[in-house]
Amino acid sequence: MEVDRFSSVLLENAVRELSSLPGIGKKTALRLALHLLKRGELEVEQFGTALIQLKKEIKYCRVCNNVSDEELCQICGDSRRDSSLICIVEDIRDVMAIEATRQFNGLYHVLGGKISPMDGIGPGDLAIQLLLDRVQAGGIRELILALSTTVEGDTTNFYLYRRLSGFPIEISTIARGIGIGDELEYADEVTLGRSILNRTPFYTSAQSF
Amino acid sequence: MEVDRFSSVLLENAVRELSSLPGIGKKTALRLALHLLKRGELEVEQFGTALIQLKKEIKYCRVCNNVSDEELCQICGDSRRDSSLICIVEDIRDVMAIEATRQFNGLYHVLGGKISPMDGIGPGDLAIQLLLDRVQAGGIRELILALSTTVEGDTTNFYLYRRLSGFPIEISTIARGIGIGDELEYADEVTLGRSILNRTPFYTSAQSF
Repeated sequence: MEVDRFSSVLLENAVRELSSLPGIGKKTALRLALHLLKRGELEVEQFGTALIQLKKEIKYCRVCNNVSDEELCQICGDSRRDSSLICIVEDIRDVMAIEATRQFNGLYHVLGGKISPMDGIGPGDLAIQLLLDRVQAGGIRELILALSTTVEGDTTNFYLYRRLSGFPIEISTIARGIGIGDELEYADEVTLGRSILNRTPFYTSAQSF
Repeated sequence: MEVDRFSSVLLENAVRELSSLPGIGKKTALRLALHLLKRGELEVEQFGTALIQLKKEIKYCRVCNNVSDEELCQICGDSRRDSSLICIVEDIRDVMAIEATRQFNGLYHVLGGKISPMDGIGPGDLAIQLLLDRVQAGGIRELILALSTTVEGDTTNFYLYRRLSGFPIEISTIARGIGIGDELEYADEVTLGRSILNRTPFYTSAQSF
């Protein structure tokens, strides 16, 4: 099916915009555009406005750089949380994933990406200076590196470690190992190897039962 | 991952709207919203506006009901096309698919869906009265039914056939058979059976070489 010959410029524009989203091809974009056409005018207006407003009015927390409606996000503004413990993550999805575990009571620092020379993303494009200022200001006891274990994640971890090693703070990383409920025989060697090297006293892990 | 606890109402709204699209779940919606946040403000405004404009300004051709920017679509307005031959399709995607073959020189009639009692779509929700008026006005020699071969498509075909059988016009349906390049052994029985019943003289099919 050719999707280049539209009978309408309006439809063509809408399809071009929708197919500019990651993972959405021309056919899917056309399906979505036709779906929007079947909705009410008010509903579609609400749809478009929500996206425009998001970009126009969103703020980034001045402390942790997380997406927020205010200058200071809800997490950083919560005085019951431990402000001496900071978990460094890539983006808001990681914050949401960790929050969902209810196991972390510290604050976050959202880098906004990973160092990736291939994509033209250097340390200056991430919220690293903000992190250094935050550490410099004092009151931080421990930083937890929680970036993904890709080449870019490791590069970023290493860069941060070098920049931060001068400060009198602990730098840790989240535990890597066999997922709970996973079978050993299906685990990859690197993960299984790491889980043996980083074994923990049984008493500690039994605490969680 | 829990995707219900957002740190921002703006983000939550955008994700809710995006995930209201068919085939887009909450996680994908969040990914798309974060992608939009990385774009320029002007770009996002253009994105949202293209969708709002589509719904606000789109017209449906007064002759064939196809999506169009004008009162009369380009196809219906083309005097070189055979206006006595009309192909009945479900939506604009079918028009685009048939146009791409360059084998059809007649006009279309876009129903806007199929009769589907399960989804609450009756004959009154489709452009059937418009079709009857068009036939009544005269000048039509043949109608080609080109709906998909689902229960809904067959129901719609049968309904149209009954409503149209009083008029002195030919009613045909597109050929069903083994796709060109397909192997017989992998074809389903119904299609293969139909292709044997509806066999065509070899001379006719050899014409296309």
